[in-house]
Amino acid sequence: MRASVHRFTMRDPGDVSELAAAINAGKVNPFHIVAVLGKTEGNGLVNDFTRGYLTQSLKLLLAETLGATMEAIGEKVIFVFSGGTEGVLTPHYVVFSVAPGEHVSTGKKTLAVGTAFTPVLKPEDLGRMAHVNSIADAVRAAMAQARIADAGDVHFVQVKGPCVTTERAAEARARGAQLITADPNKSMAYTRVAGAFGVAAALGELPPEKIREDAFFSRLDWFSERASISSGVEVAVNEVMVLGNSAAWNSDYVIAHRPMVDALDVNAIYAVLQDLGIHALGDNTAPALGRIACAMVKCEPDASGYVRGQRHTMWQDGDINAQRHIRGAVGGLVAGVIADTRIFVSGGAEHQGPPGGGMIALVAKAA
Amino acid sequence: MRASVHRFTMRDPGDVSELAAAINAGKVNPFHIVAVLGKTEGNGLVNDFTRGYLTQSLKLLLAETLGATMEAIGEKVIFVFSGGTEGVLTPHYVVFSVAPGEHVSTGKKTLAVGTAFTPVLKPEDLGRMAHVNSIADAVRAAMAQARIADAGDVHFVQVKGPCVTTERAAEARARGAQLITADPNKSMAYTRVAGAFGVAAALGELPPEKIREDAFFSRLDWFSERASISSGVEVAVNEVMVLGNSAAWNSDYVIAHRPMVDALDVNAIYAVLQDLGIHALGDNTAPALGRIACAMVKCEPDASGYVRGQRHTMWQDGDINAQRHIRGAVGGLVAGVIADTRIFVSGGAEHQGPPGGGMIALVAKAA
Amino acid sequence: MRASVHRFTMRDPGDVSELAAAINAGKVNPFHIVAVLGKTEGNGLVNDFTRGYLTQSLKLLLAETLGATMEAIGEKVIFVFSGGTEGVLTPHYVVFSVAPGEHVSTGKKTLAVGTAFTPVLKPEDLGRMAHVNSIADAVRAAMAQARIADAGDVHFVQVKGPCVTTERAAEARARGAQLITADPNKSMAYTRVAGAFGVAAALGELPPEKIREDAFFSRLDWFSERASISSGVEVAVNEVMVLGNSAAWNSDYVIAHRPMVDALDVNAIYAVLQDLGIHALGDNTAPALGRIACAMVKCEPDASGYVRGQRHTMWQDGDINAQRHIRGAVGGLVAGVIADTRIFVSGGAEHQGPPGGGMIALVAKAA
Amino acid sequence: MRASVHRFTMRDPGDVSELAAAINAGKVNPFHIVAVLGKTEGNGLVNDFTRGYLTQSLKLLLAETLGATMEAIGEKVIFVFSGGTEGVLTPHYVVFSVAPGEHVSTGKKTLAVGTAFTPVLKPEDLGRMAHVNSIADAVRAAMAQARIADAGDVHFVQVKGPCVTTERAAEARARGAQLITADPNKSMAYTRVAGAFGVAAALGELPPEKIREDAFFSRLDWFSERASISSGVEVAVNEVMVLGNSAAWNSDYVIAHRPMVDALDVNAIYAVLQDLGIHALGDNTAPALGRIACAMVKCEPDASGYVRGQRHTMWQDGDINAQRHIRGAVGGLVAGVIADTRIFVSGGAEHQGPPGGGMIALVAKAA
Repeated sequence: MRASVHRFTMRDPGDVSELAAAINAGKVNPFHIVAVLGKTEGNGLVNDFTRGYLTQSLKLLLAETLGATMEAIGEKVIFVFSGGTEGVLTPHYVVFSVAPGEHVSTGKKTLAVGTAFTPVLKPEDLGRMAHVNSIADAVRAAMAQARIADAGDVHFVQVKGPCVTTERAAEARARGAQLITADPNKSMAYTRVAGAFGVAAALGELPPEKIREDAFFSRLDWFSERASISSGVEVAVNEVMVLGNSAAWNSDYVIAHRPMVDALDVNAIYAVLQDLGIHALGDNTAPALGRIACAMVKCEPDASGYVRGQRHTMWQDGDINAQRHIRGAVGGLVAGVIADTRIFVSGGAEHQGPPGGGMIALVAKAA
Repeated sequence: MRASVHRFTMRDPGDVSELAAAINAGKVNPFHIVAVLGKTEGNGLVNDFTRGYLTQSLKLLLAETLGATMEAIGEKVIFVFSGGTEGVLTPHYVVFSVAPGEHVSTGKKTLAVGTAFTPVLKPEDLGRMAHVNSIADAVRAAMAQARIADAGDVHFVQVKGPCVTTERAAEARARGAQLITADPNKSMAYTRVAGAFGVAAALGELPPEKIREDAFFSRLDWFSERASISSGVEVAVNEVMVLGNSAAWNSDYVIAHRPMVDALDVNAIYAVLQDLGIHALGDNTAPALGRIACAMVKCEPDASGYVRGQRHTMWQDGDINAQRHIRGAVGGLVAGVIADTRIFVSGGAEHQGPPGGGMIALVAKAA
Repeated sequence: MRASVHRFTMRDPGDVSELAAAINAGKVNPFHIVAVLGKTEGNGLVNDFTRGYLTQSLKLLLAETLGATMEAIGEKVIFVFSGGTEGVLTPHYVVFSVAPGEHVSTGKKTLAVGTAFTPVLKPEDLGRMAHVNSIADAVRAAMAQARIADAGDVHFVQVKGPCVTTERAAEARARGAQLITADPNKSMAYTRVAGAFGVAAALGELPPEKIREDAFFSRLDWFSERASISSGVEVAVNEVMVLGNSAAWNSDYVIAHRPMVDALDVNAIYAVLQDLGIHALGDNTAPALGRIACAMVKCEPDASGYVRGQRHTMWQDGDINAQRHIRGAVGGLVAGVIADTRIFVSGGAEHQGPPGGGMIALVAKAA
Repeated sequence: MRASVHRFTMRDPGDVSELAAAINAGKVNPFHIVAVLGKTEGNGLVNDFTRGYLTQSLKLLLAETLGATMEAIGEKVIFVFSGGTEGVLTPHYVVFSVAPGEHVSTGKKTLAVGTAFTPVLKPEDLGRMAHVNSIADAVRAAMAQARIADAGDVHFVQVKGPCVTTERAAEARARGAQLITADPNKSMAYTRVAGAFGVAAALGELPPEKIREDAFFSRLDWFSERASISSGVEVAVNEVMVLGNSAAWNSDYVIAHRPMVDALDVNAIYAVLQDLGIHALGDNTAPALGRIACAMVKCEPDASGYVRGQRHTMWQDGDINAQRHIRGAVGGLVAGVIADTRIFVSGGAEHQGPPGGGMIALVAKAA
């Protein structure tokens, strides 16, 4: 099997012309597409409709190209978009494709991609252990599909999970079921946390005794350093994509990651570059940086109100949401180091990396 | 002479308790204060009143401490505040003090500070060659006060200049005088440009034949790499502070600077650290970074709409002003490299550093 | 002929389920739809993609329903969406349908709808007299289609016109053609002004000698009180919809309008209600208000910075765009009087109603 | 006794020149000033420093004028500023003065003003019954000072109360005391609610059995229709101002108020005008509107997400805070009816007027 990564930019969230051109030119086989990950130029908050707009636009293109319905595309391909291209960030999307075919392993590990979907969860199970376990199962299934046996070879797990909606809450109440919360925003946070614990469980990042509900939001020092979780009303099941390295694949790419201890952790960025053999210490004109195919970052405003001992104002700003602030700052830092502004920077990093920090994962052409 | 640099943080723009405590403790001699440079937590735009609030609060403190009127303080001390602590940036202010006294030079150059004020300019002269020449004269006066003979020893020139106001425009029109613009916002930009050319002229960064009005806003490749200009309705004259190194001073500090070619120029940041003998390549836990006493950065959103070939969305965002975006991004980059969020990051960098870029200046304890 | 007005709300800009249900229930004949006018919940500024998203969603629905391509729908139906549901405003869209069929006139005038498209304009003609004349022709064509002979019977003219884009500007420059502006935002304003003068010319609101380019943006006291113009990169031709009353129609609705002298003009709102025979003076619980089928308002922040002699802060606010401020305020006023928040409130009212004011048009069930 | 009301506008929050001029001209006796109520042009949220800036500026002016310290002014005069002049609203402040002196009552009731301060509350008492009772006592004291015996004659009660701060929370925890919340934002809401119940208790708007903690935030149908409560970190005690009508005063003014059932309640606005004998039904050019001296409005975004059955988007907007939306909309409505934009519009109306609504109070010259 062979995993490919293609990165495209767009004029606006309705512009999928670059992917269309790549398909027409034979550079991307639309039948092989398994996931699309991207940044859109909305605010990344509740009223950000650029994610839905891009999703609709891509489904339209793929449905037409593949002669399928838009619904069928949605059941086959994972679409995960994070809104908010603050600062220097560039709206873009990355298309992950898997070409089937056996490969005689040489022992060299290259990029492996696996996807999985959980069953539909009951509203009352969202944000609870049932949710955690369901995601852990899906991560294991995606690992199996990616033929990754050692969890240490997994470097990035993207989960997109559902949250409570008004309709789902009403249905649950009608049955007498009790929800952990009926507030969609809070439910989204619970889903992210359940996802983080689910990934940590599947990858063995936390021992089984730490996978428990009373740790949610309280034991922020218990986290997955490879999970990137988003949540939204638009999905009904949890969608999981696992990225790692495996000797069963003959991809042109490899992946690495590092946790970021805080929003200033330039050391982590240089460390992941070193993991990939990219030497660019203090020099972002180094040609080796051109090997980077895809960059993913998770971050969050430090809950303490301080970064390295100094006060930040992100939580007090009534004009700009704290998540927009942190994406702009960490995006600026990573972009400066790697000399590229096409970075998937996502906030809301509860239990995803150290508190106040997050993680960075890079996919690069193999050296 | 001996220049000192003290950096303070605050809870809000009315909180000057840290300076008050330092004065009470004898750490800062209030009679020696010549300038205060800072970042306040407003939006940095027209309706940012945090700058005026902090100025009023500091004048109140110093007037009471020195037994002077607030007006007298304003005529003696330069107050320059930039609003906007986007991302990880910390509201803070830096107090520059000069202790008089001769010094037997050892040849070693240390931090030198000079200030100067221009005469009041007529409204019709704002943004014209008369304005440029007036600022150039003031820069030369401040250099002389700082005992810097070689313009190569100047590393940072802060100018705060007036702009046209409704009242000033009316007065000029009544005399039949013609203004370059009656729009306060445009006038502010003209003042910044006149300041940049004035600094460039005084420092010899541009040859005399390039110091001309038709280059304003058009020849963006003609710039000063050491000017940092701000403008506001609250000042009537141009206030100038020159920072450099001079053998006539026995300060504990030195200063260095580098132009930044764009918003991603991490190389410039590492270069200025190297100029100061601070070795922290890829490692922001390096103890030498603790020598930094004060950081100043000038930046702007690239007018082309692209950074390193990729589209940015700063100019199209109707919710967050482009200057707020760029301050957050460049602030995040610099803070990550130097492990400190107390950075004076200012936008509006026309002719102040390369287009789309800007400059960075650092004051540090001498090694 | 018979004109119908159906008003729908949506959960988000991708939700067209209410129209789909109305079509399925036989309440709306999709073949009769000629125009859709609506408010979407974006910011109404350059980076508002909710307009495009709703347009795409409606085209998808109609293409599927009518067995046509999305392109064909776009050439037949006018879609005009204004972003920004500030304050109490409700995202909604109004579907205008025309059922063909002759009608034996009783002399009673009821709602008449006409639409027209201009030819494609050259980029260098945008914002010039050629543009004005082209729109005036289209307004006359739409009036003819609406069988309105007397311009006094026209109460609302919506125009959506193209603006210069980077591509169009490049093409023009390659031919040596000179554009009035290459800046898309300025071009949008020029298109709005050309539209306003075009409508004023066609309706005889301004005498021919006042229809001239040097009045653009300067003679703000020359205006159309029935024009509502929007502009965007997404259209290539000018799309025109005329609403008025005509004895040639047997619609259930009538329309009336009034200019608003400023943002506080509650008198105008009560006047238009009186025009429609709706008695609700000081009482928004009056049942007659239930006759209102559709409300359209044009407004703008007073350029002087004052409303009724008192300062407003809309132009100085760096956090909220002035158009968002004024839509929220005028929307709140109209909604309070008519007890309905489903109002098409649009800003950018240059030469569309008195300066600092605008207009209000209401479609209501005939008494 | 004689109460006076003077309304002033300002260029910015540091501009108190209009009051200074009025004092110099003998129009305002600075010794008689008891309270200042105003709107400043910040965002009205946590990081709005325009309130503190105006307070500091006024204290400076009054301290200099009266030869007192700024602290002494703060202990004598109540300063209540609400940030946010969204839409058409005008930054302004209203100075309430009381001239002493006995008055032979004619039975005619005119404007009466009373102020009171509570003792300092312990942090653990904030938002609890002790807080409610303390405020109720202060309201009764202010009524007594205003010589209002019948609570029905009270039309507006402004309370400004303290909230938990980091320091106060730490002090409480050190003593082992338990806070209702340590989050300043939540604490502010609790203070507003405690204030509303305190006012309702003192005025008899709610029976004693409904004054209880378990009703806080839950029984939103239990409210005061005359309370306007704000909270902030800058005060240590609760400050109370009662406005009503009393035969013991010979003021030139009278006051009236009405609850507003929702954000569209134009009927309430016309009702309060009628209470004052101001006839302006549907006509905001009516000269009688010139009698209005001061307008105060309390409002809030409907928690249900709907206004009169239609969805609003205030709670979902990530770019503009819901309180800013509602102030702009309700401010626009009131300004349109009374033809004046100098309105004290304040959000955060929990238990202050009907849920989703609020109240309006007008002070006017007696007919």
